[in-house]
Amino acid sequence: MLNIIKIGGNIIDNEAELTPFLKDFATISNPKILVHGGGKLTTRLADKLGIQTTMIDGRRVTDADTLQIATMVYAGWINKSIVAQLQSVKCNAIGLSGADANLVPAVRRPAEPIDFGFVGDIQSHRISVKMLKDMFERSLTPVFCSITHDGKGSLLNSNADSIASALAVAMAGIVPVRLVFCFEKNGVLTDVDNDDSYIRYINPEKYQILKEEGVISQGMIPKLDNAFNALRMGVKEVQIKHAKNVTKGIGTVITLDD
Amino acid sequence: MLNIIKIGGNIIDNEAELTPFLKDFATISNPKILVHGGGKLTTRLADKLGIQTTMIDGRRVTDADTLQIATMVYAGWINKSIVAQLQSVKCNAIGLSGADANLVPAVRRPAEPIDFGFVGDIQSHRISVKMLKDMFERSLTPVFCSITHDGKGSLLNSNADSIASALAVAMAGIVPVRLVFCFEKNGVLTDVDNDDSYIRYINPEKYQILKEEGVISQGMIPKLDNAFNALRMGVKEVQIKHAKNVTKGIGTVITLDD
Repeated sequence: MLNIIKIGGNIIDNEAELTPFLKDFATISNPKILVHGGGKLTTRLADKLGIQTTMIDGRRVTDADTLQIATMVYAGWINKSIVAQLQSVKCNAIGLSGADANLVPAVRRPAEPIDFGFVGDIQSHRISVKMLKDMFERSLTPVFCSITHDGKGSLLNSNADSIASALAVAMAGIVPVRLVFCFEKNGVLTDVDNDDSYIRYINPEKYQILKEEGVISQGMIPKLDNAFNALRMGVKEVQIKHAKNVTKGIGTVITLDD
Repeated sequence: MLNIIKIGGNIIDNEAELTPFLKDFATISNPKILVHGGGKLTTRLADKLGIQTTMIDGRRVTDADTLQIATMVYAGWINKSIVAQLQSVKCNAIGLSGADANLVPAVRRPAEPIDFGFVGDIQSHRISVKMLKDMFERSLTPVFCSITHDGKGSLLNSNADSIASALAVAMAGIVPVRLVFCFEKNGVLTDVDNDDSYIRYINPEKYQILKEEGVISQGMIPKLDNAFNALRMGVKEVQIKHAKNVTKGIGTVITLDD
């Protein structure tokens, strides 16, 4: 089983959570892939440098300055810090953007109806599955940041959840895949203030009911849509759980089964 | 023949030089490696963020803030921008720091007599030659920045010339290697104001005379010492030339022959 594990920004920002997570991650048997988003460092850096963040409909626009900062933070500091830490606990990590070895090619999102700037949409069928397989055979652990490229010389900013899902779908063609989203909660909660209220299993039927009842928070809906989509595309299992439980059976399992 | 080509900061800073260089580099037959230093972006960013640069004996001290900026700029923006550009001209580049796949392990320089901070010295015998060979067999072109690691979780700032030389010496054990230092001059000049005054060949005897006559500038001496050292360790040929001549026979050839 290939484990593809994505960690969220709140874990990356918190050294007291990140370091033990990386130690646990290192103990997971190969093959495995880590995907990370960015933390607050990008915003903090943009603020310090006086770069304005433009938001449209609650979404950040990636202009040239923002792309440069995102590349510096995600592909530079966060990615290499994680790789160095994993190396220190005997995990032979290799840090990658989508541009490297053309592993995750993307297309710049059309400027119509809204121009979000240098934002890249990923097509899972264009992912270099063979190259990743070669890396696994050498016991390498790919660590992906959310920077991709358009193949025409431009870097692009992509969504880390989408990269994790696209990698899972692409790899599912050759190996059974478990996709795990790790964040700072125990799973999909029915009560956001109670970390014990995590739902053990969600299937499409239950998902429908939970949505109708308004039990699932707005922010969780794209994640769950994403998860069900990955399952329908051949991924064996999707989990949403706390980073501290990455090797434990505590969390929400998303499944197509009854 | 494996070509290991290092480009200097003045080329990186100048898009009008960098873009044609990368196009020429892409046409060089495989296997090849590109090594890049940093440009002025690191200093500019440190200035904007109000981070003081500490210098001892004319050398920069890499404190924690400086290491973070260097990693963001070298391993992030510069490395990934070069990779994306090479990908656009059909060179299957993979951007790497020394921490990735533990390719270039380093040791932090001892704090005595002078503590230069997070600075890494490279030992060529610890470079992962086999992993690089595997990459060449997949027609990948490694692109190295000058960030390394100590294997204990800490990133380190290393000298890009030293990385290029160490890679050349390590790879010379399995394949003939040409090491090329590209910068903004035609070669080792006898008159710094005249780019036509480049010396065609320098051997140890001639080097001795040039040094005694004071013809070679102070800044060139470590580069040449480095070059002769690489030749004595098995590298076939060392060149120092203008980036625009990377595929041309204009420049200085360093040799052990008479």
